[in-house]
Amino acid sequence: MTRYEHFLRNCWYMAAWDHELIDGRLLERTVLEEPLLLYKGDSGRAVVLDNRCCHRGAKLSKGRLEGDCVRCMYHGLKFDATGKCIQIPGQDNVPPRMGVRSYPVVEKDHCIWVWMGDAALADPGQIIDIPYLRDPAWRGMADYMHYKADYRLIVDNLSDFAHLAFVHTHTLGGSEEYAFKTKPVAVERLDDGFRVERWSLNSAPPPFHRQVVRDDAPLDRRNIGRMFVPGIFFLETLFAPAGQGAQLAASGGAREYRNCQFFTPETRRSTHFFWNYLHNYDLHDPTVALSLHDSMVRGFLEDKTIIEDQQQVLDDDPDFRMNGIIADAALAHFRRLLQARIDKERASMSQQTPSIQGPQ
Amino acid sequence: MTRYEHFLRNCWYMAAWDHELIDGRLLERTVLEEPLLLYKGDSGRAVVLDNRCCHRGAKLSKGRLEGDCVRCMYHGLKFDATGKCIQIPGQDNVPPRMGVRSYPVVEKDHCIWVWMGDAALADPGQIIDIPYLRDPAWRGMADYMHYKADYRLIVDNLSDFAHLAFVHTHTLGGSEEYAFKTKPVAVERLDDGFRVERWSLNSAPPPFHRQVVRDDAPLDRRNIGRMFVPGIFFLETLFAPAGQGAQLAASGGAREYRNCQFFTPETRRSTHFFWNYLHNYDLHDPTVALSLHDSMVRGFLEDKTIIEDQQQVLDDDPDFRMNGIIADAALAHFRRLLQARIDKERASMSQQTPSIQGPQ
Amino acid sequence: MTRYEHFLRNCWYMAAWDHELIDGRLLERTVLEEPLLLYKGDSGRAVVLDNRCCHRGAKLSKGRLEGDCVRCMYHGLKFDATGKCIQIPGQDNVPPRMGVRSYPVVEKDHCIWVWMGDAALADPGQIIDIPYLRDPAWRGMADYMHYKADYRLIVDNLSDFAHLAFVHTHTLGGSEEYAFKTKPVAVERLDDGFRVERWSLNSAPPPFHRQVVRDDAPLDRRNIGRMFVPGIFFLETLFAPAGQGAQLAASGGAREYRNCQFFTPETRRSTHFFWNYLHNYDLHDPTVALSLHDSMVRGFLEDKTIIEDQQQVLDDDPDFRMNGIIADAALAHFRRLLQARIDKERASMSQQTPSIQGPQ
Repeated sequence: MTRYEHFLRNCWYMAAWDHELIDGRLLERTVLEEPLLLYKGDSGRAVVLDNRCCHRGAKLSKGRLEGDCVRCMYHGLKFDATGKCIQIPGQDNVPPRMGVRSYPVVEKDHCIWVWMGDAALADPGQIIDIPYLRDPAWRGMADYMHYKADYRLIVDNLSDFAHLAFVHTHTLGGSEEYAFKTKPVAVERLDDGFRVERWSLNSAPPPFHRQVVRDDAPLDRRNIGRMFVPGIFFLETLFAPAGQGAQLAASGGAREYRNCQFFTPETRRSTHFFWNYLHNYDLHDPTVALSLHDSMVRGFLEDKTIIEDQQQVLDDDPDFRMNGIIADAALAHFRRLLQARIDKERASMSQQTPSIQGPQ
Repeated sequence: MTRYEHFLRNCWYMAAWDHELIDGRLLERTVLEEPLLLYKGDSGRAVVLDNRCCHRGAKLSKGRLEGDCVRCMYHGLKFDATGKCIQIPGQDNVPPRMGVRSYPVVEKDHCIWVWMGDAALADPGQIIDIPYLRDPAWRGMADYMHYKADYRLIVDNLSDFAHLAFVHTHTLGGSEEYAFKTKPVAVERLDDGFRVERWSLNSAPPPFHRQVVRDDAPLDRRNIGRMFVPGIFFLETLFAPAGQGAQLAASGGAREYRNCQFFTPETRRSTHFFWNYLHNYDLHDPTVALSLHDSMVRGFLEDKTIIEDQQQVLDDDPDFRMNGIIADAALAHFRRLLQARIDKERASMSQQTPSIQGPQ
Repeated sequence: MTRYEHFLRNCWYMAAWDHELIDGRLLERTVLEEPLLLYKGDSGRAVVLDNRCCHRGAKLSKGRLEGDCVRCMYHGLKFDATGKCIQIPGQDNVPPRMGVRSYPVVEKDHCIWVWMGDAALADPGQIIDIPYLRDPAWRGMADYMHYKADYRLIVDNLSDFAHLAFVHTHTLGGSEEYAFKTKPVAVERLDDGFRVERWSLNSAPPPFHRQVVRDDAPLDRRNIGRMFVPGIFFLETLFAPAGQGAQLAASGGAREYRNCQFFTPETRRSTHFFWNYLHNYDLHDPTVALSLHDSMVRGFLEDKTIIEDQQQVLDDDPDFRMNGIIADAALAHFRRLLQARIDKERASMSQQTPSIQGPQ
């Protein structure tokens, strides 16, 4: 299977946080096994280009920003924001074939979104809206983690909250009872992903929440997870005093969290993981966000260890076969959905002239 | 050549020292390119399972011991000592297909032996007896070393003692004369390996022995090496005052050593090397075993450097061909014998339904 | 493409500086993916042998020098300077087939040249003469650098001086004007390589020269580059007070430099880079050579970063295609020339019995 068959291409991928491009930084980042250069020039607009100079393949990320253009610092070729070569030292004319591919890019709510497929199909309206990232009623700290694993293994991880009980007992989960006593009240198979809801009633607060609220009183906890193709996840978490969960959820009086997660394939075996964990209370107190951020990092590292081990197991023995359990309903739906989208895209691409080559 | 064609499977392999499994340790170890979990639960009986949870491939060695069972700490599946899955959080029934492969295992004389082939053929009576490991008349220190090399290259190394003269001049050998003045008095080609005997008369004591006995008087030295398929080696070494070697060997009055070595393939290119070097004199003095252990480690590291270089040479150029010399008689016999056993096993396996899959 | 098809074989390669072989050192070095042992024995003549003992492949470089011979320190086989095995411990006769390949070798002007192809064709008269390396009117410091890149990418680098402007602005180049205001006055396509001449008139001295002469007065600068197949480069650099360049070049009164560079393939993706940067003034002052050496190392590391990145880009995507510009004239000629020589050599080798196997 080539890289072209492995990934969904005609969709928007989160490629960077906006703060990664401040001060004219030339950011090198591989997405879907394609080497990208991301930057903001003097105009402030985000640009994404093939990171390889069309002359001899030198990295443009080692080049120099000039206005909205970038100059390769090997032999001095200069490219504008569309990827067009506009200067070659030592010759007067620039042949039209000289240029690097540019990628459609949209900056929205602190996210830099890039379109990796056919540029003619790139519709900014398809970008998923994430109001929490711009709403002052929510506070968080955007961060990034690198995974040496197929992004689908990370999606799997989030499709069953039961893993909270065993992987995150002492960080995000709180108790193994979560796996045994609670069940999803709903697993909705959707056209663009899935939605899972799970209640845990009258339980001790999990460590990450306990550390912030400093109160051991039992709570009702509701988790609603929403996964979108190709790998974007929102988790709505609510905590309310035991017995009042449903009531406060309706009235908006509970302490709530929003976890925004983006899994963008770097290669078939590695992933860019962007996330922001936001809360809606005590917004004046910066230590709340700092404490939650710290808990999340510890929890995510627990996942990372398991998932990178999984990747190693799969790499070591291609004959190894997984076996489904009942809790895999959401996971199985998502894998089928994603593969069907990829297959459909492949079928349509084989019938048309590819429009993804050359400068644009 | 696949891993299945490379290794002899229907035989016992030394997989761990018993002390590696104390205190409920979940030991991860790859044998014949299969990832194993080794442990002793509350009953004290050794267990060997496939290290990959049958659900999503998470490592059971990162799981939790519960009695004689192990629980995967990803989604909480629990497996008993036979590999049978006995609990899946969130569902009431466990389908019979859920389980991991278990391997026949025998603990004997501090060794954990595992059978990697057809479980129906596993006969504990085939395990080679090593009385020195349980006999209080012998004292030693069991240890382990990892090799980045095909285990057969290590077997080769031990099939010709002449290498003692050049590789181990200043540790285990003592003099280059050993290669020129001594010859094997016997190289016996056996059905299960070989036996080599070599006398070195009236020579200075080699450094490892000199360091313990603190006496420079010339000695008669007899080495008897016994190699067994697939890679188990015993070396009987006798030192006696020059001129009395044969006499004291017969009467049992000499200072003697027993080197028990086990070469267990981890992969086609890496090996688990277990060893214990035992002596039969001054048993009250712990510094004798400590000094001998230290000398052995230094000597084995001399071998390791050469053998790992050999592996690199072979990997770098598959066209490289070795050339035999007269001293390779034992080596050549062993390689032929081992390959004939592997070929015979392959032929019989291709005629029957494999019984190595699934939980047992 | 095999390694035999990738390299030109019937030619002399610079394999070591003579100072690398002092004091009986057994130098291990891979050239054209063949593992070599280089040494000088008691006679002082350089010897190059296959580094793999013909018995079991142990590295002879880990062996022991005995006169002009080398002994493998695994089982004690001894080889003379022609690669012939002359002793096998434990047996009286040495079969004629035992031996390792030896390579034609010539030491000249501090360079150890080795012939990697058909020994019958090795003509020392074909070795390129480098008078600067033996002429007391020139002083320099021979050195070595390892590249993780195809040697052809390094040859490319030197075929267009415009890169001085961008890569080496603050070390060897001095100004980006060099790329825009100067052009080669001549690019000569030769049967054995190319010659490029470039003048830069009335410019500030580049940093490496400024640091030595401590004078900011504008200079005329002439660079004459000469590249030879398979990868040997001489650069003649002249600096003269602005307006006097041509005149002093003719009279010999200018400050001049000679850069002698040798690119010897280690593998298809790595290169041995030998170099000596010599000057012809202030020869009594050792700090001149030290300062120039320091500047060159910094400049070469600037190239190395770019070129190793290029290699990574090419490895990551075999479909990536480079695009030529006008300044690539010398580069393109050299690549064509080299490939034609390799193709011609391959054609002639396929019609004859190879004479490169076995001891010589």
